[in-house]
Amino acid sequence: MWPKNCWYVAGFAHEASQSLIKRKFLNQAVVLWRTTAGKLIAMEDRCAHRLVPLSTGRVVNDQVECGYHGLRFGADGACAFVPGQDSVPKNSRVKTFPVAERHALMWIWLGAADLADEDLIPDLHWMDAPGWKAVTGYHHFKCDYRLINDNLLDLSHETYIHKHTIGHESVADSGVVSNVLGGRIVRAHREMPNIDPPPFFQALQGHSGKINRWQIAIYMAPGINMTEAAFHSVGTDRETQAFITRPLHLITPETEHTAHYFWGLPRNFRLDDEELSKKIYAGVVQTFNEDCVLLELQDAALQAEGMPQIPQTAVKTDIAPVQGRRLLSDMIQREMDDPRFVLPPAPLANDATVTMPFAIAAE
Amino acid sequence: MWPKNCWYVAGFAHEASQSLIKRKFLNQAVVLWRTTAGKLIAMEDRCAHRLVPLSTGRVVNDQVECGYHGLRFGADGACAFVPGQDSVPKNSRVKTFPVAERHALMWIWLGAADLADEDLIPDLHWMDAPGWKAVTGYHHFKCDYRLINDNLLDLSHETYIHKHTIGHESVADSGVVSNVLGGRIVRAHREMPNIDPPPFFQALQGHSGKINRWQIAIYMAPGINMTEAAFHSVGTDRETQAFITRPLHLITPETEHTAHYFWGLPRNFRLDDEELSKKIYAGVVQTFNEDCVLLELQDAALQAEGMPQIPQTAVKTDIAPVQGRRLLSDMIQREMDDPRFVLPPAPLANDATVTMPFAIAAE
Amino acid sequence: MWPKNCWYVAGFAHEASQSLIKRKFLNQAVVLWRTTAGKLIAMEDRCAHRLVPLSTGRVVNDQVECGYHGLRFGADGACAFVPGQDSVPKNSRVKTFPVAERHALMWIWLGAADLADEDLIPDLHWMDAPGWKAVTGYHHFKCDYRLINDNLLDLSHETYIHKHTIGHESVADSGVVSNVLGGRIVRAHREMPNIDPPPFFQALQGHSGKINRWQIAIYMAPGINMTEAAFHSVGTDRETQAFITRPLHLITPETEHTAHYFWGLPRNFRLDDEELSKKIYAGVVQTFNEDCVLLELQDAALQAEGMPQIPQTAVKTDIAPVQGRRLLSDMIQREMDDPRFVLPPAPLANDATVTMPFAIAAE
Repeated sequence: MWPKNCWYVAGFAHEASQSLIKRKFLNQAVVLWRTTAGKLIAMEDRCAHRLVPLSTGRVVNDQVECGYHGLRFGADGACAFVPGQDSVPKNSRVKTFPVAERHALMWIWLGAADLADEDLIPDLHWMDAPGWKAVTGYHHFKCDYRLINDNLLDLSHETYIHKHTIGHESVADSGVVSNVLGGRIVRAHREMPNIDPPPFFQALQGHSGKINRWQIAIYMAPGINMTEAAFHSVGTDRETQAFITRPLHLITPETEHTAHYFWGLPRNFRLDDEELSKKIYAGVVQTFNEDCVLLELQDAALQAEGMPQIPQTAVKTDIAPVQGRRLLSDMIQREMDDPRFVLPPAPLANDATVTMPFAIAAE
Repeated sequence: MWPKNCWYVAGFAHEASQSLIKRKFLNQAVVLWRTTAGKLIAMEDRCAHRLVPLSTGRVVNDQVECGYHGLRFGADGACAFVPGQDSVPKNSRVKTFPVAERHALMWIWLGAADLADEDLIPDLHWMDAPGWKAVTGYHHFKCDYRLINDNLLDLSHETYIHKHTIGHESVADSGVVSNVLGGRIVRAHREMPNIDPPPFFQALQGHSGKINRWQIAIYMAPGINMTEAAFHSVGTDRETQAFITRPLHLITPETEHTAHYFWGLPRNFRLDDEELSKKIYAGVVQTFNEDCVLLELQDAALQAEGMPQIPQTAVKTDIAPVQGRRLLSDMIQREMDDPRFVLPPAPLANDATVTMPFAIAAE
Repeated sequence: MWPKNCWYVAGFAHEASQSLIKRKFLNQAVVLWRTTAGKLIAMEDRCAHRLVPLSTGRVVNDQVECGYHGLRFGADGACAFVPGQDSVPKNSRVKTFPVAERHALMWIWLGAADLADEDLIPDLHWMDAPGWKAVTGYHHFKCDYRLINDNLLDLSHETYIHKHTIGHESVADSGVVSNVLGGRIVRAHREMPNIDPPPFFQALQGHSGKINRWQIAIYMAPGINMTEAAFHSVGTDRETQAFITRPLHLITPETEHTAHYFWGLPRNFRLDDEELSKKIYAGVVQTFNEDCVLLELQDAALQAEGMPQIPQTAVKTDIAPVQGRRLLSDMIQREMDDPRFVLPPAPLANDATVTMPFAIAAE
């Protein structure tokens, strides 16, 4: 249950090298590697000879050598060499997939290859743009990737799952305004004005005075999620003095019930503070581990019931996840109706202006 | 393959508290807890919202709070609170199950709730009655619960499985008399008169003289088993000087191929001897571990053959297990024919009189 | 996918004793044991009573006693004793299988028992004949046994899988001549004349001068494989001065996707050199572990695609494995057409003459 004609995050750009990376996306086993000239390559992880995974082998002279009988395949997928013979069998090749590097990420396109236009890559410039510093990491979730999107679109869960880290009564208690923008993006916005700062925010602002906090869950199908999590001290200027983080949760289905969770946590303050980066990394790892435990239990429960529709009880905070599921289903349906259908991305957030309380609602 | 209109043992009464107990019975996932007023509650382990197990959460103010989005459900199963909103969705509820506490045990009724009459709870007063002291424990068996009943109804296995603990040649060698009492109870009675005492019995009687030993396997479908295991020194009075234990094996199916094995080992002697209690506990754990290994192998073998009927070779000691299976199948069949069918329990043993050699056979 | 009317290797003769060996062949669970008179016995691992594996029990007085209720079965499979009763149920028996001991191996016949003629046991005299010394061992491979045959028939894989042990560029580079002999045996012959000796061969010949090396992969369906791996120093006499090893790879299917890999590595030199034997043992274990990792990955990949035909790209070195598969399929097909069909074995190699370069091709 996923669209194919779109770019999916395949990993971090810094991972690619002359060593083969074995990874599965949308049930497709893939090897990722980089030519000596630096070009990123993705091929199916399956030798054309005896179907052994090519990831058993290695890269030799910009070709992938199978780990079993040494057949070699070039970056175009064509068989280039067979040991012990002078010619190579015609038509022997492994499938290749369009790949690209942008925003410090590797992207892969698993749909119709001729539609793979790099202009269709979502804008995630916070990963490596000036003025931002992103801590990055990876989690593997044994659940339907859609449950992760649902989770990120209803942040009221923070109060319960993340009691010991980022949770706060105010998150679940405050109302949320959720809108679908341009038929492409869900934005679920929650303001928590004039509250006591949790310990971490207190440290950031340097005192224990009240803060105005806000959170925006932003989703673009199939798996791009951003959580604008920000605050400014009461009495300071929201537009120029806010501490803003824009966590990116980049979810790529691995199989129907497992998913890659590549993440980056860009911030607009203390860019060079390595201690802060380490602290953020540790906090995010713990937080996503907490999500992982719960979502894997949920997936198992849903599978046991044959994957029924959720929610079965509708509550107010379901608005955003329901909107998100609808956008995703539409995208899948349109591709089923027309295998050439492609849905261009939209911008997730605007750096030029700071989000104002419920400005979106007024759009 | 189990009846539903009957009380099953759900655990020990002392387990219940303000902490949620996650447990599965007859394929039904359940959470068990106790209100501040002390009332025992059982609910399905499944939030009505997004189907996450409620056991991820906690008890707050006599309500169960889901560990995902904090919805709360009262002891009656009705949704009582949704964070971030004033009203609760009508008809949002989780299923509850009749529960009761008796004989130091928790009991659950998974069939038609209106039939759950506490007078239908089997009499297991040896668990906590004056004149008796019960050591208790729990085993989890990965096998069809019926294999455990079979095993308990043919104690000749002791000679082979329990070579190093309670086994003795005399058990398998001596004849067994098995009767069905009142269409409800199987009693398989074996006398071993005038035998040398195994080391443990020698210690109990204080010398190495001969004993008269007896064993009665008692079964009431679906999963109540008692093993009267007793002896008296030759030359002493059976009615007043016997050392009697009445081990209770309380088997509740978890799934088709896993079972809960709650057990108690009541004795009528040295009630306050803590050292003896520890010794009994250690011995029972080892003994049931030995059963567990064998029955799990048997279950795997039966599953590999598609669960054929057993025994395939009939031997004399099969009488009791075959009688037990027949009572159980009848009970299941009658419930299939009439979903309102309930089979009342019968007494397992009579404290007023000590079992006499083959007295039952004469009934 | 295997023939049944043939002898399969069941283990090493030295394994059999009064202790039960639990082992599965062609999906059939078996217990192997030896009577006090020394006779090898194979019975199904399944008590005729309640289907518990007999391997839970023990051998008592040349009978197998079940570990559950102590029923005993004689070497002929008939029930010989039931505890607590004087007679044994008629017709209660467990299946037995023809077994034999030859060449230091146990052999089992799982097809029509009356066809089990010991003259049909393949000649593997190198395991224990004078003039040869065999190091032996066992591996368990979680893959279709046919993949192991394929692997052994195309030794070009050594260059890639066994880079760090026996692999050498010359193996994959040199041409192979493969013949089917008498409709029964595949022989794939590869000569590597005048090459530098790998370190191990250098040690054997005592200097670093050039060697003439050869390799012959020999296969007899369903699972008998020999790899004649030999060399002599350039300038010495091939017929009298060659260092010859004749590794035997005796593959018996356990299930569709697991296999027993019994092996022996007979050599014709330094027969009493225990240090050399230890070195060979360690080298073989590492080498077959390398094969195991790769073939298990291949099996998983093939299963994921529903076991398609391989190779999908045909290369020159596929000749022998393709010939081998054809012999095996023919054997299976003929048995399907006629359940009484038996294919007699043929000799794998001739000790009287040393293999000459491509002599076979001229036959």
